[in-house]
Amino acid sequence: MKFFRRHQHTIYQGSAHVGKDALRLVPLGGIGNVTKNMYVYEYRVDGKLRDILLVDCGVGFPDAEMYGVDLVIPDVRYLSDKRDKIRGLVFTHGHDDHIGGIPHIYPKLGRVPMWGTKLTAAFANIKLKEQAIRTQVQPVDFGQELHIGPFTVSFVRVTHSIPDASNLIIQTPIGIFYHGSDFKFDFQPLDGKRSEIEKINAVGRRGVLCLLTDSLGSERRGFTPSEQVIGETLEKELSMCSGKFLFTTQSSNISRIQLAIEIALKHGRKIAFLGRSIDQNTEASLKIGYMRFPREAVVRDRDLKRLPPMKQFLVVAGAQGQPGSALSRIANDDHRFVHIEEGDSVVFSADPIPGNENSVSALIDELYRKGARVAYSNIMEDLHVSGHGSQGDLMLMLSSVGPRYIFPIGGTYRHMMQYRRLAQDLGYDKRDVLIPEEGEILEFRPGMPPKVVQTLELENVMIDGLGIGDVGEIVLRDRQTIATEGIVIVIVPMEKSTGRVTAEPDIVSRGFVYMRQSEELIGKAKRLVMESLKLRKGRIIDWQFVRKQISGNLDEFLARETGRHPLIVPVIVEV
Amino acid sequence: MKFFRRHQHTIYQGSAHVGKDALRLVPLGGIGNVTKNMYVYEYRVDGKLRDILLVDCGVGFPDAEMYGVDLVIPDVRYLSDKRDKIRGLVFTHGHDDHIGGIPHIYPKLGRVPMWGTKLTAAFANIKLKEQAIRTQVQPVDFGQELHIGPFTVSFVRVTHSIPDASNLIIQTPIGIFYHGSDFKFDFQPLDGKRSEIEKINAVGRRGVLCLLTDSLGSERRGFTPSEQVIGETLEKELSMCSGKFLFTTQSSNISRIQLAIEIALKHGRKIAFLGRSIDQNTEASLKIGYMRFPREAVVRDRDLKRLPPMKQFLVVAGAQGQPGSALSRIANDDHRFVHIEEGDSVVFSADPIPGNENSVSALIDELYRKGARVAYSNIMEDLHVSGHGSQGDLMLMLSSVGPRYIFPIGGTYRHMMQYRRLAQDLGYDKRDVLIPEEGEILEFRPGMPPKVVQTLELENVMIDGLGIGDVGEIVLRDRQTIATEGIVIVIVPMEKSTGRVTAEPDIVSRGFVYMRQSEELIGKAKRLVMESLKLRKGRIIDWQFVRKQISGNLDEFLARETGRHPLIVPVIVEV
Repeated sequence: MKFFRRHQHTIYQGSAHVGKDALRLVPLGGIGNVTKNMYVYEYRVDGKLRDILLVDCGVGFPDAEMYGVDLVIPDVRYLSDKRDKIRGLVFTHGHDDHIGGIPHIYPKLGRVPMWGTKLTAAFANIKLKEQAIRTQVQPVDFGQELHIGPFTVSFVRVTHSIPDASNLIIQTPIGIFYHGSDFKFDFQPLDGKRSEIEKINAVGRRGVLCLLTDSLGSERRGFTPSEQVIGETLEKELSMCSGKFLFTTQSSNISRIQLAIEIALKHGRKIAFLGRSIDQNTEASLKIGYMRFPREAVVRDRDLKRLPPMKQFLVVAGAQGQPGSALSRIANDDHRFVHIEEGDSVVFSADPIPGNENSVSALIDELYRKGARVAYSNIMEDLHVSGHGSQGDLMLMLSSVGPRYIFPIGGTYRHMMQYRRLAQDLGYDKRDVLIPEEGEILEFRPGMPPKVVQTLELENVMIDGLGIGDVGEIVLRDRQTIATEGIVIVIVPMEKSTGRVTAEPDIVSRGFVYMRQSEELIGKAKRLVMESLKLRKGRIIDWQFVRKQISGNLDEFLARETGRHPLIVPVIVEV
Repeated sequence: MKFFRRHQHTIYQGSAHVGKDALRLVPLGGIGNVTKNMYVYEYRVDGKLRDILLVDCGVGFPDAEMYGVDLVIPDVRYLSDKRDKIRGLVFTHGHDDHIGGIPHIYPKLGRVPMWGTKLTAAFANIKLKEQAIRTQVQPVDFGQELHIGPFTVSFVRVTHSIPDASNLIIQTPIGIFYHGSDFKFDFQPLDGKRSEIEKINAVGRRGVLCLLTDSLGSERRGFTPSEQVIGETLEKELSMCSGKFLFTTQSSNISRIQLAIEIALKHGRKIAFLGRSIDQNTEASLKIGYMRFPREAVVRDRDLKRLPPMKQFLVVAGAQGQPGSALSRIANDDHRFVHIEEGDSVVFSADPIPGNENSVSALIDELYRKGARVAYSNIMEDLHVSGHGSQGDLMLMLSSVGPRYIFPIGGTYRHMMQYRRLAQDLGYDKRDVLIPEEGEILEFRPGMPPKVVQTLELENVMIDGLGIGDVGEIVLRDRQTIATEGIVIVIVPMEKSTGRVTAEPDIVSRGFVYMRQSEELIGKAKRLVMESLKLRKGRIIDWQFVRKQISGNLDEFLARETGRHPLIVPVIVEV
């Protein structure tokens, strides 16, 4: 079946500044990134920047090569000389990859006003408060229209895996952009609040210049199932469990947690929340009335011992096998109040995020070993459903909006390419589906096809411990080398007054070979360094050169002997 | 449906040494390991070890925490004082996780005779030759019976993802063991050689004491599909391709490669092999007649440029995204002879091995970016089928063999537990399914249930570069710390004659903070070290203590300032 675009695109004719206005779209989180979402909408007149609207400010997760990095945030250097033009920031929903960057980035933006739907604001404000930032995200209703500089923003309710998720209709002087970040069409959402399809159709009738759209599910056929299916599976598992019941899911999916709690109460169990993120999110959701259960149904973790296992329903953080999380500690029998026993059940209502498969597997193994019955999606269907639309959802959105251009976001390159195939099936020309390269800025001008006008060098801004950005590419490259090959430090004592080498060099290594068992190798290496030094008789002036020579000779020698290339650090010590 | 064991177990009565004989089973590759397969069958009389039979000698793959480690091999220290008792080694099939350890371990075993089916022997001998080991694995036929000490071994042909895969019937003085390593029941195998079910049934009728069985597929319902399905998908993809066609799969799956080649030839394309493993395996298989195609259909890589893209069919190594592999180099446009262009197709006939998802994803993205059409199992079914049996296959094996005890192997703990559930469905008692812990040795004695008699401390023997085992736990732990936190080296110059600190200490760091941007931090750290030293006036005798003090103080300081705990290495330099 083929759909065709139904709408006339009359948006260009209406503009007052034909040919002079421009709208630029800058994806600061990078292209082909599923997480770390941050978009800049820039309005320009006669080539001069007038106003900026920001959408989202999320964190990304480090890839396997980013040793020791906790989080990655968008690179906002591009905005540093444009702070006075930023009119506001709007969040689409309360997931970390859309709000999590704000406590780190807000201080760099100046006093920008921020908005989001009720739960989105509540979750973002927890993060701001933690970093002692007083400014708050203002909650907005779905009926509300925001006038932010020349932009008019209205919120479209969409279903996702968190309540109050929204898409944005962004009216700009040169046309309407539909910012369709994460969504699916769940026709039976747990909170009863369906996607506002009529709003989507209405904006489609007005004519949309560009649809930015979630593309993560573009490889899956059909429609993504409703959250409802999980209830039945959970009910069945619970009725079979004769011990404690542990339920783990994404801690922001409060509708699913609410569902689980209702089922638990029906079965006469009491609830305990284990894990900081679950605690915080539940607290915030109760406060704004997004979760509802009798307070007396909740037991504190330390009081669990007074409750028979059959009466316990534990909502536990750590479905991704995060080290140090509540579930991980329980599996390793390292939790103060919870110990797994024969008869207990653990239900994973989450699929491993790509990259976490191994840690989730290890966690499941460990829980089995402790005697639990474990249910997870490999062996049982309907324990988890995605929050992202599949091909059906994506095509429904596309044909409802009927935009002139499409910019798939929220997926990797292959999801974007796959989305393009779908759009082509719906009659779009390949060139109408915009897939810019990393750092490319798209400019839209009335009556002209969008084009790339500038390319930014975007960096990964890494958070490691308390430092933001102080682990850069150089530090990371050193970590990579040392992690796979080890480090060899060569210490050469030099007499300050004469510039001569006064004693034998010393060699220390870590992560390379176990030195006590490698005396011969280290001895040979020392002699090699001595020789490199002897060639330079008397006072050594060009230490830079000597350093290089030591590194080069030693690298060659060690590679020959061990097949490894450790990081070699020659240190000249003045004595 | 429930099956029940059909056979009487009379094996105990027939034994000459009732109560005195024992058979021990030692899994040297560890329990709950999918790879690194190696099993010791030990025959004992009156508690005295008489004879050893070894089965398989595979490599394992390092997990994410084993930074820089290339491969892991079984820990054979247990055998070191038992070499004179080893009567032989039998390989079940030619996959690396069953044969790959032999060149490293053979030198530690003494002159042990080795056997395997034809292709298994051919593949193992390539590896032995590479390490300049002259001894060869002797090829055996499926009809053959080997008498190895008190053990009689016969080979049962099973289908898997490599030709000539076998299960072993191991007759021991105390009963029959069925060593059912990797298998599935493919009723239409590509090479036409089906699993010998009649042999399996026959041994079942004789009575099997213990079935060791593949359990990796125990989470999947139904039967694993036949390799045949891949042909149709491939045919369809090929007919749609107007450019070069790149086909990538596990390089040991020569039947699938043969199938792909036949389809390519039918479409008038010529073949090129890219990658060392593909080259070697094809060469060896042609030599023993396991692959067949006209030599003139093959083009050398350097001659590809003379062939129009439409005529090229490239069999490429690197389906797992291995860095440096042919496919990886092609995707990065770093291959001498192959460059991706619009119109080219790349077909992945392999699923990512858990842990490799990210590198495979990145590879697919890169190929898309270069303009290729990419087919992989997320978007297309029937591009790959597993070589391991699903629940149906496993139940068919179990009910055909009808053993007294079952020992699930070749899976992680959760696969073994899931297998136990299947066996219970077939009427087995939970206690009949043996799931020992890591390092546990099982002893079978006539008329008694098997029990754990000893627990070994098994280590991971790691291969990094040219070194075997020289990267141990200490080196690895240092690599892990440095990889995630960095290293800080503190150099304290000490006058040899007086034992006094003569100059300011020096601090060098790598992978911690970028030093040029952290002068203040490093300056403070230096002063802190100076203070630690000043507290010890005059001649310092207890350098051990001073080292500890420097490390402790500095660690505390750096954690407070940066939230990180780098590896701190104090070095005292005598001058």
